[in-house]
Amino acid sequence: MNWNECPVLVTGGASFISSHLVDNLVNQGATVTVVDDLSNGKKENLSKSWDSIKFVQQDLEYVSKNEMKKLFDGNEIVFHFAADHGGRGYIDTHPADVCSNFAIDHHVFDACNNSSVEKIIFSSSACVYPTELQNEIGSDYKLKEEDSDCDKLNGFLSADVEYGWAKLMSEVQMKSFNKQYGLKGCPVRFVTAYGPREDVTHAIIALIYKAVEKMDPYQIWGNGQQERDFTYVEDIVTGSILAAEKISDMTPINLGTGVRYKMIDVVKMICEVLGWEPKEFDFDTSKPTGALSRSLDNSRAKQLLGWEPKFSLKQGLEKTVEWFVENHKIEGKVNEASLLDHTN
Amino acid sequence: MNWNECPVLVTGGASFISSHLVDNLVNQGATVTVVDDLSNGKKENLSKSWDSIKFVQQDLEYVSKNEMKKLFDGNEIVFHFAADHGGRGYIDTHPADVCSNFAIDHHVFDACNNSSVEKIIFSSSACVYPTELQNEIGSDYKLKEEDSDCDKLNGFLSADVEYGWAKLMSEVQMKSFNKQYGLKGCPVRFVTAYGPREDVTHAIIALIYKAVEKMDPYQIWGNGQQERDFTYVEDIVTGSILAAEKISDMTPINLGTGVRYKMIDVVKMICEVLGWEPKEFDFDTSKPTGALSRSLDNSRAKQLLGWEPKFSLKQGLEKTVEWFVENHKIEGKVNEASLLDHTN
Repeated sequence: MNWNECPVLVTGGASFISSHLVDNLVNQGATVTVVDDLSNGKKENLSKSWDSIKFVQQDLEYVSKNEMKKLFDGNEIVFHFAADHGGRGYIDTHPADVCSNFAIDHHVFDACNNSSVEKIIFSSSACVYPTELQNEIGSDYKLKEEDSDCDKLNGFLSADVEYGWAKLMSEVQMKSFNKQYGLKGCPVRFVTAYGPREDVTHAIIALIYKAVEKMDPYQIWGNGQQERDFTYVEDIVTGSILAAEKISDMTPINLGTGVRYKMIDVVKMICEVLGWEPKEFDFDTSKPTGALSRSLDNSRAKQLLGWEPKFSLKQGLEKTVEWFVENHKIEGKVNEASLLDHTN
Repeated sequence: MNWNECPVLVTGGASFISSHLVDNLVNQGATVTVVDDLSNGKKENLSKSWDSIKFVQQDLEYVSKNEMKKLFDGNEIVFHFAADHGGRGYIDTHPADVCSNFAIDHHVFDACNNSSVEKIIFSSSACVYPTELQNEIGSDYKLKEEDSDCDKLNGFLSADVEYGWAKLMSEVQMKSFNKQYGLKGCPVRFVTAYGPREDVTHAIIALIYKAVEKMDPYQIWGNGQQERDFTYVEDIVTGSILAAEKISDMTPINLGTGVRYKMIDVVKMICEVLGWEPKEFDFDTSKPTGALSRSLDNSRAKQLLGWEPKFSLKQGLEKTVEWFVENHKIEGKVNEASLLDHTN
């Protein structure tokens, strides 16, 4: 597939992962429109590509059908990344707010269907998987796409809090638009993405923030033993673009590394990168930690997309720390409210 | 609770069940506003109450936040009945269209939360239950509210096609608005409601239609052995109003009779009421039939609402046949497309 001059719409394109996607698509010559309500996204995330893109400020939760059609018509590919989203601290404390995604996602799928759009790629999440499969520290079980299979609606499904259920139901919607109208595309399931431009409601950035502010005792949410599959943003972007090139039938694709790290070990790696360490750790088990052990099986991505993650956690952390240090003004203290909510 | 002069908003109020609800509320002196886009509802359904209500024609799938606030402010109670809905023939063939409910319902819950509304009663459905519990003809298992428990999001849930999943997720949304913002109300779960003003995509009306048109061989979808818990519309209405009076904490309430009938026996009752019978039955097993055996346990409604269904199936059928015969112009043939889609 040739992206040169391909008209592409990126919803929520001024946010973390999506803005890196925009940069990549612009580099490949695509004609990119970004729609974002700037509730979570920031124009500065798009500074690299600003002169090459069209930007539309628009909310997608409350919008008219005509506005949607006008916005979507003329585009071939839609990357739908707009969402009410945040890290564990945010989604656990904003169960109603994340339900906005039910409306946003429906509007987007409907608009793709009512316009010239040929394919939609949807930013889904490892939160579509049953938490029951992620309860055992030290487990080597990797979540497979079929562990949450929207083709089996008459079976039982499970997901991780309201945020995960909304993502899962949006995958159900995609299949239903495919069944009834032939809409093409696929969901890509991300897991603990991290990298430059992410906000401090997400674990890695929160941990870097605390280290940069030399928080001591250094607070870790939970006992630090929880395990995650950390995926660097550039890998997520290349996987999403490959999915757009190769998948049409709404088959979901895991984009994860298949490697898991304990949170405490990630903290130690961050401290090593920064050349600083706290005298003491404070494990706050009252704070939300999410699933205990989560990693994605990426065999399907390897097989169908020819995709493999290129960045080790160490490499990704180095790049992310570098970005954070460059962009963060030292305050000498950690604003804990900002770890739970974008508005703080 | 005194409904006299109580400001009430009924969404989708020009449709089948909702218009009966409007009549009841108007009779009790409530100040009723109906919002309906008339996609499925009809003004004539509201003819009894027309002079006493305020009617607003408005779609709730695509709408602005301000319009919603303007519409909802000033109301104390909202009965949310607006939905993309239909009988089995419709929901099985319109999986994407019924996903509109994801957006409609979110907008309504959000508007209740952003306005003066004190309580929201949501028209949920027996389609929120696992079909796995409804696979055995002759079963005496009655579906209990806890068989689909939105408080247990980290467990496994199941529902009946996209329509049922959307209803289930709307119950999840209601709980999330309750958790995050204290919104009050509850979902009421209906099962095979029937009565005057229902359309022919629903089983009972389709069966009456075929009998009135003297269809012979008389076509029955499936083998006729499938079992349902038929609930007369007036019982649904009184149960929904009692739910508004008595439930605040989003506890779902089944409104069903707990009695089940085979489809073939219902056909025979209808023929008896009409004093006509076909020479031959044609069992079309290619047609959608839904779950094999479905009935609701109504103990919770009895206990919490003091509600019991008042109408036997025979009584309800007599009233429904009477209405149908009065309002149907004999065509001498059955328009089969109309059994699948409102637009036919």
